[in-house]
Amino acid sequence: MDLARYIEERKKLVDGALDRLLPSAADPPAALHEAMRYSVFAGGKRLRPVLCIAAAEALGTDPLPFLPAVCALEFVHTYSLIHDDLPAMDDDDLRRGRPTSHRVFGEALAILAGDALLTLAFGAIAGMEAPPPAVRTALVAELAAGSGSAGMVGGQVLDLAAEGREISAGALEEIHARKTAAMIEASVSFGALLGGAGAAQEEALRTYGRSLGMAFQVTDDILDATGNEEKMGKRTRQDDAARKATYPALYGVEESRRIAAGYVESAMAALRGFDERARPLREIARSLLGREN
Amino acid sequence: MDLARYIEERKKLVDGALDRLLPSAADPPAALHEAMRYSVFAGGKRLRPVLCIAAAEALGTDPLPFLPAVCALEFVHTYSLIHDDLPAMDDDDLRRGRPTSHRVFGEALAILAGDALLTLAFGAIAGMEAPPPAVRTALVAELAAGSGSAGMVGGQVLDLAAEGREISAGALEEIHARKTAAMIEASVSFGALLGGAGAAQEEALRTYGRSLGMAFQVTDDILDATGNEEKMGKRTRQDDAARKATYPALYGVEESRRIAAGYVESAMAALRGFDERARPLREIARSLLGREN
Repeated sequence: MDLARYIEERKKLVDGALDRLLPSAADPPAALHEAMRYSVFAGGKRLRPVLCIAAAEALGTDPLPFLPAVCALEFVHTYSLIHDDLPAMDDDDLRRGRPTSHRVFGEALAILAGDALLTLAFGAIAGMEAPPPAVRTALVAELAAGSGSAGMVGGQVLDLAAEGREISAGALEEIHARKTAAMIEASVSFGALLGGAGAAQEEALRTYGRSLGMAFQVTDDILDATGNEEKMGKRTRQDDAARKATYPALYGVEESRRIAAGYVESAMAALRGFDERARPLREIARSLLGREN
Repeated sequence: MDLARYIEERKKLVDGALDRLLPSAADPPAALHEAMRYSVFAGGKRLRPVLCIAAAEALGTDPLPFLPAVCALEFVHTYSLIHDDLPAMDDDDLRRGRPTSHRVFGEALAILAGDALLTLAFGAIAGMEAPPPAVRTALVAELAAGSGSAGMVGGQVLDLAAEGREISAGALEEIHARKTAAMIEASVSFGALLGGAGAAQEEALRTYGRSLGMAFQVTDDILDATGNEEKMGKRTRQDDAARKATYPALYGVEESRRIAAGYVESAMAALRGFDERARPLREIARSLLGREN
């Protein structure tokens, strides 16, 4: 199959829905709406929405009526990038080749644009016409768990606390599990909920998401250590400069590649009970090993 | 009736539920959980939870099974205070007589504690055992609308943009309507949803909430202009120093008092169709005119 084309087609659907859900830049406060749109349309790969769609499709479900839930994942991801880039956090000037939100709109508006995107994520799910309310509340609970203090936000706190300190392999795994894998697991779990997965299917998809999320973060660390600034669209070797805890720093690049391959293998194994319709999920996992951006 | 005692009793219920819903400060990341708890238990009046409970009680509904939704209002209010106090926003060192979150925990943790509280608000609603999922999704939608770009966050952006500029009476009303009244309306509307209000009752309670919210913000402006720092627990005359748009600045203190009284009157009028069980709502509105903190 042509994975690039599969992703491109779904990315278009998602981009259209994101545009419809975001407040118009013509409505006041225009600056806030511009800031929200600037970061959402900053060239993101839409990995989380595509994973959600691919998981629903693996269960034979057409995700088209559920696009607001799919977009909620991207709103949460975008808010987390805006806040992570702030001077008080990672202090990044560049993201995907463009100035970060606070560099363009100032810190106050960047904080508030992040807040508004997080809020919009939950509003978008609650406001859907389908699926039934019981599924929508399950989606809200899943998103809150994956992105809150037990998930992504907790991971960011652990990550900041580890800066400049030597940490154990277990602590590093914990940071990556919370900071990245929790939301990637939630994305796949969204697809499971929208696709009406049974308990065993849902558990398998969760395992896939968790393993894929870990593989994604390890390859991200490797790219930061070895990558090409032009292809990445941001300054690389940033982690080293900030003395961040990373896999290459702890294990070296070669061993990190082996660890990433192990996670990809676990992700593939989790999909054993799925048929041909899970092919996009399998291809996405496999593609991580050749990641260049 | 004894309003102080009514509020005190409900405040105790709310404080207990807040404690149960917040992650334990013993669990990692402890610093994040401490920061969340520090601001939630910083001596807040619990106005929004009490309004929600009083609205449900005005409809004859016992709010006890619905405390997580009641707490969600306080989580959102607390997150908004933490972010508003940040150096990039209002840059406040003191809140309710105690150092603000970023003064105690640093800016990064203050931003993340706010993010985690906002996320927890939605998770708390979704995770409730009652009311039915359709009501829970309505609560999520209501909270997102009241606190997001069309409500509170939008109001904060308008407020920051108005600093140091002369603005019209209409623009000032718009700021206050979004920044404060939207979430107070949402709080009363939560009570209406939990109490199973009919359409006319819900509309009446919304009108009450909107008017009360405006009255609350106008009296807040008056207190800031005339108030006693000891009673307020924060530095007063801050609005003037920051050249904020306020009612006293635009209309003078006496005319501002008349405007507040007008809003209280509208709030009372909206409750005309309610019986004795709405007495706490009426007393809360009346009490605003004698506010000292």
